[in-house]
Amino acid sequence: MRSGLVSLLTDFGPDSRYVAEVKAVLLAPAPGATLAVVDLGHAVRRHHVREGAYLLRSAVRSFPPGTVHLAVVDPGVGTERRALVVQAGGHLLVGPDNGLLWPAACSLGQPEFRELVHPDLRRTRVSATFWGRDVFAPAARWLALGFPFEDAGPPVGDPVQLPAVPPRREAGRLQGEVCLQDAFGNLSTNIPGEWLADLPECVWVEAAGKVHAAWQVRTYGDAQVGQLVVLVGSDGFAEVAVREGDARARLGCGPGDSVVLRA
Amino acid sequence: MRSGLVSLLTDFGPDSRYVAEVKAVLLAPAPGATLAVVDLGHAVRRHHVREGAYLLRSAVRSFPPGTVHLAVVDPGVGTERRALVVQAGGHLLVGPDNGLLWPAACSLGQPEFRELVHPDLRRTRVSATFWGRDVFAPAARWLALGFPFEDAGPPVGDPVQLPAVPPRREAGRLQGEVCLQDAFGNLSTNIPGEWLADLPECVWVEAAGKVHAAWQVRTYGDAQVGQLVVLVGSDGFAEVAVREGDARARLGCGPGDSVVLRA
Amino acid sequence: MRSGLVSLLTDFGPDSRYVAEVKAVLLAPAPGATLAVVDLGHAVRRHHVREGAYLLRSAVRSFPPGTVHLAVVDPGVGTERRALVVQAGGHLLVGPDNGLLWPAACSLGQPEFRELVHPDLRRTRVSATFWGRDVFAPAARWLALGFPFEDAGPPVGDPVQLPAVPPRREAGRLQGEVCLQDAFGNLSTNIPGEWLADLPECVWVEAAGKVHAAWQVRTYGDAQVGQLVVLVGSDGFAEVAVREGDARARLGCGPGDSVVLRA
Repeated sequence: MRSGLVSLLTDFGPDSRYVAEVKAVLLAPAPGATLAVVDLGHAVRRHHVREGAYLLRSAVRSFPPGTVHLAVVDPGVGTERRALVVQAGGHLLVGPDNGLLWPAACSLGQPEFRELVHPDLRRTRVSATFWGRDVFAPAARWLALGFPFEDAGPPVGDPVQLPAVPPRREAGRLQGEVCLQDAFGNLSTNIPGEWLADLPECVWVEAAGKVHAAWQVRTYGDAQVGQLVVLVGSDGFAEVAVREGDARARLGCGPGDSVVLRA
Repeated sequence: MRSGLVSLLTDFGPDSRYVAEVKAVLLAPAPGATLAVVDLGHAVRRHHVREGAYLLRSAVRSFPPGTVHLAVVDPGVGTERRALVVQAGGHLLVGPDNGLLWPAACSLGQPEFRELVHPDLRRTRVSATFWGRDVFAPAARWLALGFPFEDAGPPVGDPVQLPAVPPRREAGRLQGEVCLQDAFGNLSTNIPGEWLADLPECVWVEAAGKVHAAWQVRTYGDAQVGQLVVLVGSDGFAEVAVREGDARARLGCGPGDSVVLRA
Repeated sequence: MRSGLVSLLTDFGPDSRYVAEVKAVLLAPAPGATLAVVDLGHAVRRHHVREGAYLLRSAVRSFPPGTVHLAVVDPGVGTERRALVVQAGGHLLVGPDNGLLWPAACSLGQPEFRELVHPDLRRTRVSATFWGRDVFAPAARWLALGFPFEDAGPPVGDPVQLPAVPPRREAGRLQGEVCLQDAFGNLSTNIPGEWLADLPECVWVEAAGKVHAAWQVRTYGDAQVGQLVVLVGSDGFAEVAVREGDARARLGCGPGDSVVLRA
């Protein structure tokens, strides 16, 4: 009995029938095998490839090697953009060639890209508007069931990358970008968590043109209710939070905005 | 090892504990078998049988034959209305006899209806308010695990149908109804997609008492951002959309409203 | 082939990547076994242990014995509060020692509590902010796969309990508390459903300082549209509802508020 795990990220919206149609393809019974699907999120803002890319990157390492990550934020559906499968760190990622898979793939290891062209990997009839169901889902399914990565299609040497400003580390000063916000208003950055060791217990947070005092803590419960804190988030990156409050509202910034943490 | 797929459509609302209770029944471990459940949607407006019926119809054909579709939009719960199981095109559909299953069943093939009365198919204690959990879910489970359709109960010759105005095709003029809107504001109609071949590249869309110019395209990416387009949707029916915009807002109409596409 | 069921309740918010990370741990492929996860709800208000506790209690009995219920509403994450596993009525419950598991455990049978300390039951690296993923989910997984309850850790004799006012039954007068509201505005109380036999067909409902006339019915369909009704809910407790309407809005009360039903 073969078993496999597929994660699913889209911008189709919560409670979308399109998500159901993708899962119908993924979960069609296969003799001697069971797949399970985990929703990584469907509330990515429509066509926000960057938001989807960071969400994917933040979660992939919680999945075991062997997982196939299917991601569809695809403003170019039905046009000439390529369909990709990526192998990195023992994981596979499937989606459009628009940068969506890039940050997650790099965070997992040295990525190897192939174009999804093998005819067995797609539906015989492909609709022009729903590659998620007709191209990406069948490919993810067959790859999860053991179809060899090398047979998916030719290597791709020039996958589309997201323009990214890497985080900067100077004496007592860390500069980066807010990548994600969660339902609690916690802000996740692209500043590696271990860099926080450069800073003292009390740090300054610069964001949206203002400066705020914050405390470095190990966990939310170490702060007072309402206190602004900086800590290593569960994804390994520096996170700005307010205990039982909303850092996004406090700082007035969100994904894509610049943030500085300094002594 | 037997495996099966169950789709689940309700008006219980997203994140509902009632959905969880239905799934608890469906997914109770069974020796030598695994079932998987796919959420078809739970945000159907409360008691809107028609909305649920069209949602079900739009998605069933993405599921493989053998799937059991469980649908519960049931204002008459606990009253005399019958419980049904339908067999059509190799799929089974389970739900109340109020028209909910009718369009999907007809779209899958020649439907055969039976009343769900076999005592093995329901809980020993049936609550008056939650047939989804106590009657429909156990039936869907057992049918997915191989209980014979023919043994579920007597044939039903007069299932409740939804009143429906069929789409009309005249020279250069297609008339129909908006059936569904999605999270992007795309509007799905009951006009067969192949009828669009009757119309030129530039068409007029009449809706909510106004006339709009639109372009026939193959996919969203073929249009300019903000352009109103008409295309064959992923469910095979004519769809009205705005590239990276909201057709529902542009036209001021939604499910249940009449729409005309003409030369 | 071993199979198991895990229910999952959190306050992480719908469409949360944190829920996905928890499921990634639960559903990692295991040779010779398949687990299924059912979402019990993720829209519990942040840190509302009481709301989570009642939601858990309302649904657990719809799951089969053998189910592992994983619940994470955990304002004290990363601090000294204990991690618990509870055995009751053949079910297991996993979560923080803050009262969250208490009402559900008591409703299932005589509960037996143990502290989750066995090193095999947690990740080797535990983040300070995400015990749901790093401590509770691995424990729930291994327990669902057959790890013996007795080996999880030492017995706990003093688990944290929620302060609760038990419902009161006097001649022609039942007093209790609203525990839950659902998406329809139906209000679930802590008054046992069978106590309603004390009351006549027409009852008075006192809530939020006002008195309303209501009818006792067996199911919603027995009432007129818009009528206020009292009935035995699907969880076995007295429920106040409005047929095709919203009892929460009508009464102006919700979870935590007192309610009296009287002749």
